[in-house]
Amino acid sequence: MRKLFLFLGLLGLNGLHAQQADSVWIKKIADEILSNGRAYENLRVLTKQVGARLAGSAGMVKAEQWGLKTMKESGAQQAWLQECMVPHWIRGGKDEMWSNTLVSGNDPKKPDARLVRKDYDIAALGNSVGSGPAGVSGEVMLVNSFDELEKRKDEVKGKIVFYNYKFNPTYVNTFLSYRDAGQYRGQGPSRAAKYGAKAVIVRSLSHAADNNPHTGATRYDSAFEKIPAVAIGLRDADLLSASVAKGKINISIKTNGQFLPDTIGHNVIGELKGSEFPDEIITVGGHLDSWDNCEGAHDDGAGCVQTIEIMRAFVASGYKPKRTIRFVLFANEENGLRGGNKYAEEAKAKNEKHILAMESDAGGFTPRSIGFSGTDEQYAKVLSWKSLIAPYGCTEINKGGGGADIGPLNRIFKTPTASLNPDTQRYFDIHHARSDVFEAVNKRELELGAVNMAAFIYLVDQYGL
Amino acid sequence: MRKLFLFLGLLGLNGLHAQQADSVWIKKIADEILSNGRAYENLRVLTKQVGARLAGSAGMVKAEQWGLKTMKESGAQQAWLQECMVPHWIRGGKDEMWSNTLVSGNDPKKPDARLVRKDYDIAALGNSVGSGPAGVSGEVMLVNSFDELEKRKDEVKGKIVFYNYKFNPTYVNTFLSYRDAGQYRGQGPSRAAKYGAKAVIVRSLSHAADNNPHTGATRYDSAFEKIPAVAIGLRDADLLSASVAKGKINISIKTNGQFLPDTIGHNVIGELKGSEFPDEIITVGGHLDSWDNCEGAHDDGAGCVQTIEIMRAFVASGYKPKRTIRFVLFANEENGLRGGNKYAEEAKAKNEKHILAMESDAGGFTPRSIGFSGTDEQYAKVLSWKSLIAPYGCTEINKGGGGADIGPLNRIFKTPTASLNPDTQRYFDIHHARSDVFEAVNKRELELGAVNMAAFIYLVDQYGL
Repeated sequence: MRKLFLFLGLLGLNGLHAQQADSVWIKKIADEILSNGRAYENLRVLTKQVGARLAGSAGMVKAEQWGLKTMKESGAQQAWLQECMVPHWIRGGKDEMWSNTLVSGNDPKKPDARLVRKDYDIAALGNSVGSGPAGVSGEVMLVNSFDELEKRKDEVKGKIVFYNYKFNPTYVNTFLSYRDAGQYRGQGPSRAAKYGAKAVIVRSLSHAADNNPHTGATRYDSAFEKIPAVAIGLRDADLLSASVAKGKINISIKTNGQFLPDTIGHNVIGELKGSEFPDEIITVGGHLDSWDNCEGAHDDGAGCVQTIEIMRAFVASGYKPKRTIRFVLFANEENGLRGGNKYAEEAKAKNEKHILAMESDAGGFTPRSIGFSGTDEQYAKVLSWKSLIAPYGCTEINKGGGGADIGPLNRIFKTPTASLNPDTQRYFDIHHARSDVFEAVNKRELELGAVNMAAFIYLVDQYGL
Repeated sequence: MRKLFLFLGLLGLNGLHAQQADSVWIKKIADEILSNGRAYENLRVLTKQVGARLAGSAGMVKAEQWGLKTMKESGAQQAWLQECMVPHWIRGGKDEMWSNTLVSGNDPKKPDARLVRKDYDIAALGNSVGSGPAGVSGEVMLVNSFDELEKRKDEVKGKIVFYNYKFNPTYVNTFLSYRDAGQYRGQGPSRAAKYGAKAVIVRSLSHAADNNPHTGATRYDSAFEKIPAVAIGLRDADLLSASVAKGKINISIKTNGQFLPDTIGHNVIGELKGSEFPDEIITVGGHLDSWDNCEGAHDDGAGCVQTIEIMRAFVASGYKPKRTIRFVLFANEENGLRGGNKYAEEAKAKNEKHILAMESDAGGFTPRSIGFSGTDEQYAKVLSWKSLIAPYGCTEINKGGGGADIGPLNRIFKTPTASLNPDTQRYFDIHHARSDVFEAVNKRELELGAVNMAAFIYLVDQYGL
């Protein structure tokens, strides 16, 4: 009995020593990021010198070169490009939407009515078809939900359906509002096409105080005609809604989207080789592609520069990983997931052993929690690290975490996945809108995201899962 | 035994029902704030139509009128101004600091050296004396700490001391960096004057990426001469530091600060009368005054509009408080605390019973925790409410909380005090600088601060302390 106590006591003491050593290492890495961080300057270069970088675009090619160079400069032992075919959607020109309203003249001597053109601030949805050079015109049919669309399906034919479904402000986690309203962007065009709509307008998935339209991928159902689809800014959505309430209103839409043939894209990969278990691979990443209408600073430039920063800080602080860590900038999150699929397929072909994948793709905001998906046993282990990470902002480790790009790895290998969950309040102000720019990112919030991820990766590297 | 279990079971059930009822009320109030919130628009008016409002200024008079009107419009049963004398410091003109550097001509045919004036972006510290119309000039003596000042005290006489002490980036809670570096702004002038310095330059208390100087109160020690004191922007601090490293550099400073006679100011108070315990008073507030060089959006326009919003949401959602709740915009946090003192003195004179005071004065950022100062028993009670508040952002209730304006209430009555603790990463980017403007505030973050405070106030109102 005594021996058992002694044994447990020693174990406790060892555990304590290990925790102290971990705490010291994590602080060293955190101090490196907070004092000598490069993430913010790297993001400035990516957003201001490269800019928009949708898969298949010239911007993406430039971004890949930037990524490879920055990986090498930041201390990667190896860095390479992993080729994959990517979709190549182009916006193809200026998106336009306007109405012509009959307005009586201001001059009492010339009371003749005249047509006044009102332009709306819109953006064609990603992956959507163009209207053709003549555009499409039709009466606006406003519906507040799919339920209303179904009830009024007989009225749809020949109309332009306007989904005015509002981003729910009462969800504290704004990703719930996004999931809720997101179905209108995703399914809206085909569900309206089913009943003969000519085009679709979707209220932007945002609660911003401005009027910027928010694009993002739509998904056509091949059973129905592909019709033009645009997102409209929130102020203009309210204006259009008010106009519709007053009476019939005709709208013209001109968009130019199209898919060119698939082209070559690349995941950018940097690696630090494990000293003890080199065949056990930990992946950490973000996605390098962005929508074409913005700098993609939060989505997901932030995740990319955080990924590189974790590597840089490991190297700069003298940390030698036990396991192999891969730092990956994925090629095609926004409209195809070809980068994430390719990464997992190659891993399978090479029979690699992937023990964890973590993604940062929710913006460079102040970190609040880490999300984790794995077995209960793995979750219990991860949860025991909470007090080591909490001082840096992630005060919770929640069940359920991952990312689009690391999903394929999980599906193939059952690899546990994790996500950095930053505060969600500001994300949908700028998500997929022209306001997603470098200036919307705060240096310390960005850095602390990298710190919390680095702490988690460090612990997985030390203790496995 | 059975009866005991039954009793405990019922107690548990009642507790559960109470928690459910509380949860429903809190959600109702939260939804009101998040769906119909006025805080953001109120802040726009306060910052854009009133603007800067240092105690004693015309802006403050305008702000008081705005506050009284907004209290009434937002549903106060009673609203009034509570008079107090306030200090009246004025900046008195444009702050200037410059050096003249000998530069050789660019034209090879005219190689004559000439003097080039370099202006630095500075702001006189609040409460500081002016330099006189002629300004002060002297050689810059850069010190990195008070230790260095003491070691080199014999060199100080006739110099302009430049405290280049850096805001520590390795503290995750930036208020620790502020407390750490803040002593240079507070004590720096007198500690340099003690050894004969002519003036003092203080590196701004910030880690911003821009060059805006950050003012704030300094405190002269009456034992020594009052000398001019300015804060310098971070980029200019680095530039000046680099110049000093190259050799002797002379600087001229012209500031115009002075105290006019004390004048009349007011706390703005709105009240909802308690239905069951009207003599038990809960105070919630922020401070209405701001520094003169900014809109005071985060500091502390946010706290003011949150205070009013809590009252508005209580009224709009039909909540009838059991206890009397006072909503207070304090008159003079920045450079005198006369508002907070007056409020406590009058409470004492009227023998009021103050059971809790809560302040929001750390910016309108996303809420993270509530700080609480009271007895252990009170803390235990408050902690039992954690799961009711956590869904709205304050996932922690920490020991230690209050605010400058409610400190006097605590000192006189031992009233428990609480604070809203929002995320701290962006606060010192803008604190006391011209960048503390409406545009730096996010609508939802601001609203969620009000939600979390409202939830806490609701629970104290329901259950006392």
